[in-house]
Amino acid sequence: MVKGKLIIIGGAEDKGDDNDKGKIDGEGGVNDYYDNGILKRMLEESSKKEKSRIEILTTASTVPEEIGEDYVKAFGRLNATNIGVLDIRTREEAHDEKFLKRLKAADVVMVTGGDQMRLTSILGGTPFLDLVHEKYIKEDFVYAGSSAGAASASNNMVFQGTSDVSLFKGKVRVTSGLGLINNVLIDTHFVTRGRIGRLLQIVVANPRLLGIGLEENAALMITNDTNMVAVGPGMTMLVDGRSIVDTNFNDVRDGDAISIENVVVHVMSKYDSYDLKKHKLSIDHRNNDRE
Amino acid sequence: MVKGKLIIIGGAEDKGDDNDKGKIDGEGGVNDYYDNGILKRMLEESSKKEKSRIEILTTASTVPEEIGEDYVKAFGRLNATNIGVLDIRTREEAHDEKFLKRLKAADVVMVTGGDQMRLTSILGGTPFLDLVHEKYIKEDFVYAGSSAGAASASNNMVFQGTSDVSLFKGKVRVTSGLGLINNVLIDTHFVTRGRIGRLLQIVVANPRLLGIGLEENAALMITNDTNMVAVGPGMTMLVDGRSIVDTNFNDVRDGDAISIENVVVHVMSKYDSYDLKKHKLSIDHRNNDRE
Repeated sequence: MVKGKLIIIGGAEDKGDDNDKGKIDGEGGVNDYYDNGILKRMLEESSKKEKSRIEILTTASTVPEEIGEDYVKAFGRLNATNIGVLDIRTREEAHDEKFLKRLKAADVVMVTGGDQMRLTSILGGTPFLDLVHEKYIKEDFVYAGSSAGAASASNNMVFQGTSDVSLFKGKVRVTSGLGLINNVLIDTHFVTRGRIGRLLQIVVANPRLLGIGLEENAALMITNDTNMVAVGPGMTMLVDGRSIVDTNFNDVRDGDAISIENVVVHVMSKYDSYDLKKHKLSIDHRNNDRE
Repeated sequence: MVKGKLIIIGGAEDKGDDNDKGKIDGEGGVNDYYDNGILKRMLEESSKKEKSRIEILTTASTVPEEIGEDYVKAFGRLNATNIGVLDIRTREEAHDEKFLKRLKAADVVMVTGGDQMRLTSILGGTPFLDLVHEKYIKEDFVYAGSSAGAASASNNMVFQGTSDVSLFKGKVRVTSGLGLINNVLIDTHFVTRGRIGRLLQIVVANPRLLGIGLEENAALMITNDTNMVAVGPGMTMLVDGRSIVDTNFNDVRDGDAISIENVVVHVMSKYDSYDLKKHKLSIDHRNNDRE
């Protein structure tokens, strides 16, 4: 049983705009940052709502001040101001009691984008990551990640493979992630950056993993390692390789083109849910922008 | 019964390089232009091989001289020199006896990239297109198209929908193509430009159409409206919507996010074949770069 909530975001999520504040974007629909944005949902899911203590973890980024400030402003627009930027730059800092104390007090940790290998190499095997896991399992805690922060959340993490070579054997690389969730492989900026090929290669190599392709401004919330609900305006593609009936994957050499027969793909949009244990999608048939 | 051969290319096909001539690219494998390129295969499939009369149809392009010259050089590197550039710019020219005579004498028509709407609006309903159809059905004739030239080959043709909006209802547009093949929807530059979303939207709107997503430097050859063989180094994704069990497509409004349950996807690489009538993929298990 996991008490925490995992929110994974495909990157480039809406962060609002000072000029829009109080106004309604469109007709107050699914795209309205103040009513329906991913960060708003994150606050709603947190234990103390707007009063929750939020730490922005900028370790993945090479421009931590800038990205940290963006999130402080974005949450500020939603009246959440109990917020800090946790810029752990080294493994040494990931052992620092000062940072551990701040993590202990946090209701939400928001892991920013950047390079996911920075997250694993700096946080992997440290007291900081251990405490993240403990809080995620035992507390009413929100662990959220966007882009690299989302990609790194699972046990297996993709870190290489541009779209143009992603279906040539060996051109996509997977390594170990931060391990908050198992049996999935999370990719981000999915449609925009043409990443279907890399999920297909990962899934054909091991259909145990469900490929989760989060588009920009898309998010899923996962509770108890089982229930996955779409909470962002964008779409998510699920790539399920259990149905594969044939492939040349084991016949061809590195660099050769891959063939795959019969992968099942789903597209999730807001309010849809997916049961990770039963492998079953439930599509919500109401209009997307109802309230 | 169709006697002609249809070769559709995902764009950006290898056109060789004068400096490489005679040399072997890599180890003479699947990527070697002179031995295994798409244009080489096109010559092999044509009735008179290197001596075939080839017409480069540049109507889709706004830089017809440039693109025409590129193909003349590319075929020239393969010792095919009986070649002309057919630059039909207007509907009037598509009635011109001079051009019809040239088409009559052609063994291969290679339709270049550009804007597929130029092809349909300039050639649609003209004696030129009628003659293309007649030759394709009755003769040992190769009709090849790359990028826009491929996308326009089918009865239904996609012409709009950038990757970032491609899974919002109504953001992908289909219109009538040149009609050489039915029951498919051909998209190009498929992985590189992140176009999976638009095929998914097209297929959910009508699962009668098999979505064909040709990546760059990928090609399929279709014979007798039935047999489809991968002949290029690149990969092709097939999107088969007949298996769809649920969608919100009819519930949501234009601009809303689409959900889809259970689309079947295949990945084809060189030497694989697909039967368009039986809807069956056959993966070739030999090494890709064998000779």
